[in-house]
Amino acid sequence: NEQEEEDFIKNNYVARTLLNEPELPPMTWSNWYTQINWPQATLLCLEPLVALYGLFTTSFMWQTIVFTIIWYFLTGFGITAGYHRLFAHRSYEARLPLRYFLLILGAGSVQGSAQWWSRGHRAHHRYTDTDLDPYSAHKGMFYSHIGWLLFKPRRKPGVADISDLTNDKSVQWQHRNYLSLAFFLSFVFPTLVCGLGWGDYRGGYFFAGVLRLVFVHHSTFCVNSLAHYLGDAPFDDRRTPRDHFVTALVTLGEGYHNFHHEFPSDYRNALKWFQYDPTKCLIAFFKLIRLAHNLKEFPQNEIKKGRYSMARKALDKFGGTITWPKTNAELPIISFEEYQRLSKQEDGRVLVLIAGFIHDVSNFIDSHPGGRALIKSHVGKDATVAFYGGIHDHNTAAHNMLAMMRVAACKYGGEVEHIKKRLGHVQTPTPIFA
Amino acid sequence: NEQEEEDFIKNNYVARTLLNEPELPPMTWSNWYTQINWPQATLLCLEPLVALYGLFTTSFMWQTIVFTIIWYFLTGFGITAGYHRLFAHRSYEARLPLRYFLLILGAGSVQGSAQWWSRGHRAHHRYTDTDLDPYSAHKGMFYSHIGWLLFKPRRKPGVADISDLTNDKSVQWQHRNYLSLAFFLSFVFPTLVCGLGWGDYRGGYFFAGVLRLVFVHHSTFCVNSLAHYLGDAPFDDRRTPRDHFVTALVTLGEGYHNFHHEFPSDYRNALKWFQYDPTKCLIAFFKLIRLAHNLKEFPQNEIKKGRYSMARKALDKFGGTITWPKTNAELPIISFEEYQRLSKQEDGRVLVLIAGFIHDVSNFIDSHPGGRALIKSHVGKDATVAFYGGIHDHNTAAHNMLAMMRVAACKYGGEVEHIKKRLGHVQTPTPIFA
Ligand code: HEM
Ligand code: HEM
Ligand SMILES: [Fe+2]
Ligand SMILES: [Fe+2]
Ligand SMILES: [Fe+2]
Ligand SMILES: [Fe+2]
Repeated sequence: NEQEEEDFIKNNYVARTLLNEPELPPMTWSNWYTQINWPQATLLCLEPLVALYGLFTTSFMWQTIVFTIIWYFLTGFGITAGYHRLFAHRSYEARLPLRYFLLILGAGSVQGSAQWWSRGHRAHHRYTDTDLDPYSAHKGMFYSHIGWLLFKPRRKPGVADISDLTNDKSVQWQHRNYLSLAFFLSFVFPTLVCGLGWGDYRGGYFFAGVLRLVFVHHSTFCVNSLAHYLGDAPFDDRRTPRDHFVTALVTLGEGYHNFHHEFPSDYRNALKWFQYDPTKCLIAFFKLIRLAHNLKEFPQNEIKKGRYSMARKALDKFGGTITWPKTNAELPIISFEEYQRLSKQEDGRVLVLIAGFIHDVSNFIDSHPGGRALIKSHVGKDATVAFYGGIHDHNTAAHNMLAMMRVAACKYGGEVEHIKKRLGHVQTPTPIFA
Repeated sequence: NEQEEEDFIKNNYVARTLLNEPELPPMTWSNWYTQINWPQATLLCLEPLVALYGLFTTSFMWQTIVFTIIWYFLTGFGITAGYHRLFAHRSYEARLPLRYFLLILGAGSVQGSAQWWSRGHRAHHRYTDTDLDPYSAHKGMFYSHIGWLLFKPRRKPGVADISDLTNDKSVQWQHRNYLSLAFFLSFVFPTLVCGLGWGDYRGGYFFAGVLRLVFVHHSTFCVNSLAHYLGDAPFDDRRTPRDHFVTALVTLGEGYHNFHHEFPSDYRNALKWFQYDPTKCLIAFFKLIRLAHNLKEFPQNEIKKGRYSMARKALDKFGGTITWPKTNAELPIISFEEYQRLSKQEDGRVLVLIAGFIHDVSNFIDSHPGGRALIKSHVGKDATVAFYGGIHDHNTAAHNMLAMMRVAACKYGGEVEHIKKRLGHVQTPTPIFA
């Protein structure tokens, strides 16, 4: 056992790393201020306050509201269609203009450079739920939503290969110019658009700039928090990712996260037409206008296997809550003569032989839909033919109930053999789980 | 085979009866008028015309409209809670005042006496979908809805025991006085209520009398037509009955008909709180005020079995559309040395040994989320440990996909055995259907 444990650690990258690379000491009341990531924490805490202040002190212009919504979607798509599906997962290929376009929009969401973002995200997929996952859902809703950005992490994320990104000119250009791009696109640009467009500099700054950024930030954060808590796991339940419509709604379609973690380099997050995945539609549109190609899809056959095994697991669990009838092996075996003798005893039991089993139907006979008399007249006889259609072709539920009343199996004799033979063709058309 | 057929007929009441009791010759253009059930046909064809005439010539009074709806529900419940669930199925027991109350209301729906109605209905359950079923769904939507009432049936319904009803004083009283009761309750009574109540004799007759009757009739008829066509079969699919919300809506809750045919003497038709079954609620209310008792329910365990076997059938069908990986038996078995030799061939194949199988990953290597290099470096080696967590603990979908790439099984040798042993503890946490 100790040997096994040792072997496991030797052969498992995560276990090995967690053992060999120590983590920072936990935060305490005396050192917390040294452990805060001050630039990020300041930005993330200030922006909702500034947005609130703006909301209460700025009058609304419909043009600004419309532009705010558009700018929310555009910078949001910079993350979902750009950072996430294109750069982190390479789920499709994009021509140079589109790459720059998405990199610029992505910078406007102020979430770091595409390279930094993808590096963390690849570690998140590779080490999901472990301590090498930078925003592991096992550390709680708050931590995976925003906590991991407010404080210095206790350990650095596990290794992830980003050589494709460090060799990419467009990604490198954005990485070098990230700070100025981010500042310009998230604050300057929206202020200018609304100011020069319809004279609303103030609204442009507070709404299309700051308020929009609050929404874009928490929208992305929800993919790491909500999408790992809310909903169900139709494809695999080994790890925390979950599918939920509400998460999709607030994340431009990234809410089918159980699917996404199973099939990360699929350009889709939602498969069904009625599920909300505007990012998927946008990528399909990019393909249509020849800016994107090689949209990757996992084979339908493998996707089905996920659904199948989860459905089967649920069904097996359901089946486990059902009491099934006794089988031959659990019952005494008696002769037909013995059955006849027992039937005549005045012990309150009502015994009926059907399909090789002897049933005690005393608790049921009074509520029999076919009446008491029909059963009574078959006590001590073989009622197989009568039960299987000779008198009434009982439904499946009747067969299932009957099976629960088994008290013995019967070695056929005389009359029984005779009837059984004539009954050769009779089957129960749907399976009866006996 | 001929012998088997003969045996089947001998041992099956329905087959025997259909063979021995001839049916009437089919209707033709020359004899149709002798084959029409004139009294019923006249009533059923005239009533919608009279209702229409009334609709266009009578002004609406809100009191009449309210009473019409109430009278629709009351006479409807006379059928569903009375005729159907109490008298035909004995799904609960009712005290004498309630029995009379329901018999009187039932007469107001003009569907024959409770005894006549139950006799046919018991045959419908006992011989569902066969020619001994008086309104067999196999004869088409029109026939099972109303056709069986318009024409003289080609054969009489199969035997059904109604001795409980012929021995029941209340049922016999209603049977003897049916015609006057029906006339009084369906036409005279509503006319008087509306006339004496708020002076609207004409509205009382046309709306609460005739129009209401049209709805009550076709509502009941829908249980025989719609409920045998529309919806799905969550409990058993041997026969035509189906569950559907729309059917329930138009039939005061009788639309969960697949359940009802499986569990006919259950006082409920719908099990779930969100399904519409007002008749069930009414019976529960009768119990509350001590007018009803012994409400029958089929054991939950047997109801679950129905759901389980239908779900399993659907899942098996779904599983059948999936391509599963090749097993040992379908693959050549080669030695580890042979695997190493084949790996070195420049034939375009990329061979990787994982968990005892050799996989040709050449079509996948370029889209591998972990990159080309990691796989390349394991060609000709045993990559089991790497794949199972040594480098990356692959998700279930990756295992499933990998299994599809099997080209051979490997007799372990040297290096392999050694690694395999250290790997003893590694399992794939969720089942992989291999
Ligand atoms: C011994 C010979 C039996 C005969 C001849 C017989 C006959 C019948 C008949 C004629 C009906 C139809 C009642 C109606 O719809 O009005 C019926 C229904 C039913 N019987 Fe029996 N019965 C027998 C034994 C049993 C036993 C032992 C069970 C115990 C599970 C059983 C369970 C049922 C059930 C659940 C129904 C209602 C479902 C259906 O219509 O198929 N019967 N039976
Ligand atoms: C030969 C040794 C292999 C190694 C060392 C390896 C390594 C990796 C790594 C590091 C990742 C994570 C990529 C990321 O998230 O950035 C990964 C993902 C993946 N690999 Fe491999 N791989 C190997 C073989 C294979 C093979 C033969 C298949 C064929 C089915 C495969 C299928 C996948 C899939 C589907 C994923 C994405 C799903 C997941 O994150 O688990 N791998 N692999
Ligand atoms: Fe995630
Ligand atoms: Fe992702
Ligand atoms: Fe029916
Ligand atoms: Fe019924």
